[in-house]
Amino acid sequence: MLNVLTPTEVIDVINKHFTKTTFQYEKIFTVNSVGRILHTDIISNEDVPGFDRSTVDGYAVRASDTFGSSESIPAVMTVTHEILMGKIITTSLNKETDENPANITIDENNNPCVAISTGGAVPEGFDAVVMVEHTESYSDNMIGISKPVAPGNNIIFKGDDVSKGDLVLKAGAELTVHDVGVLAALGFEYINVRKKPRIGIISTGDELVNITDTPSDGEVRDVNGCMLAAAAKKYGGIEVSYGIVRDDEESLINVLKNCIKNLDCDIILISGGSSAGDKDKTAKVIESLGELLFHGIAIKPGKPTILGIVNEKPVFGLPGHPVAAYMVFELFVREVISCYLGTTIKRKTTIAKLNEAISANHGREEIVPVKLVNGVAIPIKGKSGLISKLIDINGYIIIPRNCEGLSKGTEVELVYV
Amino acid sequence: MLNVLTPTEVIDVINKHFTKTTFQYEKIFTVNSVGRILHTDIISNEDVPGFDRSTVDGYAVRASDTFGSSESIPAVMTVTHEILMGKIITTSLNKETDENPANITIDENNNPCVAISTGGAVPEGFDAVVMVEHTESYSDNMIGISKPVAPGNNIIFKGDDVSKGDLVLKAGAELTVHDVGVLAALGFEYINVRKKPRIGIISTGDELVNITDTPSDGEVRDVNGCMLAAAAKKYGGIEVSYGIVRDDEESLINVLKNCIKNLDCDIILISGGSSAGDKDKTAKVIESLGELLFHGIAIKPGKPTILGIVNEKPVFGLPGHPVAAYMVFELFVREVISCYLGTTIKRKTTIAKLNEAISANHGREEIVPVKLVNGVAIPIKGKSGLISKLIDINGYIIIPRNCEGLSKGTEVELVYV
Repeated sequence: MLNVLTPTEVIDVINKHFTKTTFQYEKIFTVNSVGRILHTDIISNEDVPGFDRSTVDGYAVRASDTFGSSESIPAVMTVTHEILMGKIITTSLNKETDENPANITIDENNNPCVAISTGGAVPEGFDAVVMVEHTESYSDNMIGISKPVAPGNNIIFKGDDVSKGDLVLKAGAELTVHDVGVLAALGFEYINVRKKPRIGIISTGDELVNITDTPSDGEVRDVNGCMLAAAAKKYGGIEVSYGIVRDDEESLINVLKNCIKNLDCDIILISGGSSAGDKDKTAKVIESLGELLFHGIAIKPGKPTILGIVNEKPVFGLPGHPVAAYMVFELFVREVISCYLGTTIKRKTTIAKLNEAISANHGREEIVPVKLVNGVAIPIKGKSGLISKLIDINGYIIIPRNCEGLSKGTEVELVYV
Repeated sequence: MLNVLTPTEVIDVINKHFTKTTFQYEKIFTVNSVGRILHTDIISNEDVPGFDRSTVDGYAVRASDTFGSSESIPAVMTVTHEILMGKIITTSLNKETDENPANITIDENNNPCVAISTGGAVPEGFDAVVMVEHTESYSDNMIGISKPVAPGNNIIFKGDDVSKGDLVLKAGAELTVHDVGVLAALGFEYINVRKKPRIGIISTGDELVNITDTPSDGEVRDVNGCMLAAAAKKYGGIEVSYGIVRDDEESLINVLKNCIKNLDCDIILISGGSSAGDKDKTAKVIESLGELLFHGIAIKPGKPTILGIVNEKPVFGLPGHPVAAYMVFELFVREVISCYLGTTIKRKTTIAKLNEAISANHGREEIVPVKLVNGVAIPIKGKSGLISKLIDINGYIIIPRNCEGLSKGTEVELVYV
């Protein structure tokens, strides 16, 4: 009989056995990549922007021409050109350029400036942009500038944003909507992302019936099969639902072999077997095909959780109680999925005030599902095993194993689900 | 020219014009419903559990038979039966039952009890379950109970969890993994959810090239087209990407008509047109086909945002700057999507300490994107329009319009993205 592990020990065991160094990947459209895990570092192939860009609507100037200007004594400038969006003008201030007939020669003695829009390309020879709000239009293409600008003002220079060769996104990052924006800016229409793990979901228990069936007295519907499939999908996996397996060792061995070999599952979740004898059945089955890593977690709910390794694949035995199975998925199955994907879980947390005292638990870390209302955490109570406890969960709080209870009003860290 | 609205006024305008009372819906598998919006109230058709269930492994007893028991003087009981998972036994304590030959008569004078597993059906006539940990096995099917139980202990009674007729989930709820568990428990294999809105995405700007193209000087890739499509998908819509439309009124009118009539878009996002003249082009196009609701939001970034209504469909003009477009999507486009779906956005927030002072802004509410590291909010700075600002965003904080700046260490509310 293996020892019961603490939650921290469980995470260590998971990292030790299931951390991967090589990954399967697939190429997908960047637009479809939100929530997926980046397979390779993204290094910029180019400077962004690729040219000096104005950040405002106004006039590109030589900053020195605006020095000393004010509302009462504006600097008078000649608007020689207008930069159209998506176009450039190649200027040479008072230099003849026979080589390139597209070049434009601007008389630098006239305090020249060019009209430019936000995002427009600032021509060579100009080093700042004056906002249109600080100018006044005169006749004959003349303007007055009422506020001096310093060199560089209102310009993003070539490569200011991202330089060629910059590491922009790291392999293993979970991609966000704004990452998609960055990838689009750098021209990545497709990217390589880690393949989703196939998560086999097996429910055991002679009391279980399909969710489409009406249970007789003594029977209950297979809640976990459906809920764990939804969780597998939400947290980056592909659910391979095996349905209900009768509660005998031979059936379970065959199904587990099938899951691993024929269905190519990467992670297997066996839930249920909540009757006294069945608790050990999953453990026995794992031991007969592979190795059991631990048998029980010092946590409430979730104590009967087991984890083993068969053909190098993680095989969980999850509690039959839906609330317990759900919490174990949140805390531990997600860690295994993250190992498979080579990423780290970024849990969103907040600080909330407990709306009532929570009494001490005894030697086991306790996971308390809570409802969050205006910054107040309301523990969801009720007898163990109640389905209705699932309804209002916004997150959970963790009570350390040696805590002697928390008083009303205590500030606790809530982990969103 | 319409007034610039405050963010609160914008939300009011959105709710006034786009709140729906009837919704389109579709039937989907419950297992696929996470993140979807429930179309109809879910009312339980049955009691859960459907029978009195044990919450522990142990022995079903009459509580009164255990009164007075202790470690030193255990109550001695006879184990008359074992309840198998998924099965029931119908007992009659000392009552002859000729009507039902399956009934079992138990001699009540023997302190009878029945072995039961977690989840097992407690037979009639028994009113508590003693945990196996508080018992000791003797020979001849006798056990000793070392701790008394009160009636109801360790039993969930029929209907305790959910009663027939209970409102379990409300129409408009965004479904979670644990809601799927509840729906499975109640036998809902399929459910009706609101149809996703079709979100038309149009990019305008003569400087734009497709993300597959290499921009020449003066040109930039269409970041918003890709990023807004990813956002539309993430937040419950179906993206209908129109690509880049040249910056003239007639093209834009034709595309907008096409989006609404032929492509059946429910919400249209036109982004870009960041050059001075183009800012009004989207507004003119909306006015020529429908009604403009506002022209500008007193917010930074995002000021040039406009919203109109064409054929009863919301049409946004979003800023061309990706960071601004992203923030406006988070704050306002999501509100329109929520109106379409008949749900409310549940933003996850936390309290974080500012790691540096933020200077006052001037009459506009300011949205500051931040990175969150160990409870500290680090404002993401840099010139307006930088793509690389998008990389590290974990959330944003809102600086009220009349705030005179925030000092380092101030506790701020961070909204996760």
